[in-house]
Amino acid sequence: MKNYIITGCAGFIGSNLVDKILGQGDRVVGVDNFSTGQERFLEKALTNPHFHLIKTDLLDLASLKKAFKGGQMVFHLAANADVRFGINHPEKDLQQNTIATFNVLEAMRDNSIKEIAFSSTGSIYGDSTIIPTPENAPFPIQTSLYGASKLACEGLIQAYCEGFGFQSWIFRFVSILGERYTHGHVLDFYKKILQSPNELSILGDGNQKKSYLYIQDCLDAMLFSIAQFHDQVNILNLGTNEYAKVNDSVAWITGHLGIKPALKYSGGQRGWVGDNPFIYLDTAKINKAGWQPQLSIKDSIIKTLVFLQNNQWILETKG
Amino acid sequence: MKNYIITGCAGFIGSNLVDKILGQGDRVVGVDNFSTGQERFLEKALTNPHFHLIKTDLLDLASLKKAFKGGQMVFHLAANADVRFGINHPEKDLQQNTIATFNVLEAMRDNSIKEIAFSSTGSIYGDSTIIPTPENAPFPIQTSLYGASKLACEGLIQAYCEGFGFQSWIFRFVSILGERYTHGHVLDFYKKILQSPNELSILGDGNQKKSYLYIQDCLDAMLFSIAQFHDQVNILNLGTNEYAKVNDSVAWITGHLGIKPALKYSGGQRGWVGDNPFIYLDTAKINKAGWQPQLSIKDSIIKTLVFLQNNQWILETKG
Repeated sequence: MKNYIITGCAGFIGSNLVDKILGQGDRVVGVDNFSTGQERFLEKALTNPHFHLIKTDLLDLASLKKAFKGGQMVFHLAANADVRFGINHPEKDLQQNTIATFNVLEAMRDNSIKEIAFSSTGSIYGDSTIIPTPENAPFPIQTSLYGASKLACEGLIQAYCEGFGFQSWIFRFVSILGERYTHGHVLDFYKKILQSPNELSILGDGNQKKSYLYIQDCLDAMLFSIAQFHDQVNILNLGTNEYAKVNDSVAWITGHLGIKPALKYSGGQRGWVGDNPFIYLDTAKINKAGWQPQLSIKDSIIKTLVFLQNNQWILETKG
Repeated sequence: MKNYIITGCAGFIGSNLVDKILGQGDRVVGVDNFSTGQERFLEKALTNPHFHLIKTDLLDLASLKKAFKGGQMVFHLAANADVRFGINHPEKDLQQNTIATFNVLEAMRDNSIKEIAFSSTGSIYGDSTIIPTPENAPFPIQTSLYGASKLACEGLIQAYCEGFGFQSWIFRFVSILGERYTHGHVLDFYKKILQSPNELSILGDGNQKKSYLYIQDCLDAMLFSIAQFHDQVNILNLGTNEYAKVNDSVAWITGHLGIKPALKYSGGQRGWVGDNPFIYLDTAKINKAGWQPQLSIKDSIIKTLVFLQNNQWILETKG
C-alpha cells in the first residue's frame, strides 16, 4: 500500500485518478482549493477510509508542507487549465501553475518525497514545425501564457530531479474528454445548442485540428508509464493516433443530438489569440512500450456529451 | 534619439551596454537594485544627462511601472546570474528571474512598450544531445534552477509576443568575459591564486568544455541582431566558434601570471550539481547574417584577468 498525494483532487482528471488509485487499494491525500474543483466528484472517495481531503491553496506553502506529510509520491494535477483566457489575467498562469508547482516541489523536498507525476500539455510545443509532434521536437516557441507556465513547471521539475535527486514523469496531454469533463469545446457547444438549437457559433474557421484522449485511457497511460519508464526525468506525450477537426466534432455532436444548426464561423486559422491550429502528438514512445488507447476521439466526444446530458449541473459551474 | 530602459544597469553586461547606448547618443533609464550591481560601473554614465538611474527592485511592480514611463524598448538584463548555487536557495531563481521577468513584461504592457531584448543562456539547452547546439535543438531537459528560470522567462516573453503584440530578441549567451566581469571561473581562479599561488583547486576533472564571448563582442552581437532580425520572436545564440577546456583556461591564466601551481581536481565530469560538462553553441544563425566576434576565448580570458589585476576591489564584491 502506497501513500499518494494528488493535487487538484476535485478536478476532472484528479478526481478520476483518486477513484482509480483508491480502487487499487492505495491511500490518497487529496489537495484542492475548490476554485474549480467539485465536491460532488469526490462523493465516492469521501466514503473511503483511505482517502483524506485537505482543502488548501497551493500558494499556501506552509499548509502544503503539512498536507504532504507521510506522502510517497505526488500526482500534481492542480492547475489553471484555461488556455484560452490567459491574456485576460496574465498573473493567473504564473501563480496557479508556475509558483504553485514550485511550492509543490518545495513541500515535497520538505517531506523527503522524491517522486512526482505532472500534467503538462501538448500546448507546450506551440505551433510545432513537426506534426505529429514527438517529445524531442525542436525547441518550441510558446504562443500562450498557459503553455509558457507549463514549460516553466517542466523546467522546475527537471531541475529538482538533477539538483535534489527527484524522479519525474511529465505527461504532455492532448485535450482530455470523458466523465467529469468541466470545460472545453464539447461543453461550450452543448451549452450554446441548449440555448439556441438552430444556430451554432464556432471560433475560427472550423478547420483547427486537435487530438483528444479519453479520461480512462489517460489514467491508464499515466500509471502504465510510471510502471514502465525508469529514467530520472520521463517525458511522455499522451494522446491518440488520430486528430479531429472542429468541424468533425461539431458533426458528431449535432448528429448525436439529432439537430442541424446553422454554423456561424468567427473565421481565421486560430480559435483565439495564442491558439495552436494543429495539435497532434506523436505517441510512438508510449505505444512502443506497449500502451494503446481504447477509445477513438469520436467515441470519447460522444461519451463526454452523454455525461453532460446526464449532469446538467456541470453547465452551471465555472469549469 | 530612442529611449531605452536597461534593467540590471549596474551589472557586468548592463553597465557596459549603458555606456555603449549612451555613446550612440540615445537616452537610457537604468534600473538596478544593487544586490550585485556596482555604482562604480556607472561613474561615467552618471555624468551623462541622457542617463537616469532608478534604484528599485524588479519585484516591486508598482515602482517598475513608474520607472518604465516614456520608454520605447527594454533591455532586460537583471537576473540572478549564479547558476552554480541554485540548489542552496531554490526560490532565488524563481523570484529574481521568473517573477522579475513577469513584472518587467507587465510594466512594459502598462506603458505600451512592445520591444524587449532579453539575456537568456546557453545553460537552457541542458546536457544537449547536439553540440554545437543550434537554436532549434531538440526540446531540452533542464539541469539547473538557473536554466529552468531562464526557460520560464523565455516562455513568458514569447507568450507576450503572441498575446500582446510584443517583439522580442532572446539572446542565449555563452559565458561572457571582459571588463567589469564580477563572477565566474576566471575570478575564482585568480582569487585562489592570490591566496595560495602554489596550489589551485579545480572543480570537476578540468575537462569541462565551455564557450565564452568577450563583452564588447556580446554587445555588438545584440545590437546587430536587433537591427538585422525582424521576426516577432528572434532567438539567437551568442558565442564564439570555439570552446575551451577548464584546463586550457587554467594554463592561460597561470601562464599570464607566470606561476605554476599544483593542480588539485575535485573530480567528476561536472563542476557542480547541475553543471553541463560541454556548452558550445552553434552560432551559424547570427554568423550567416554577417556578424563575427573579434576576440578569441584566450584573448578574452587574458583581458578579463588584466581587468581583475587592475581592479582588485572586484574580488571583495559578492559578484
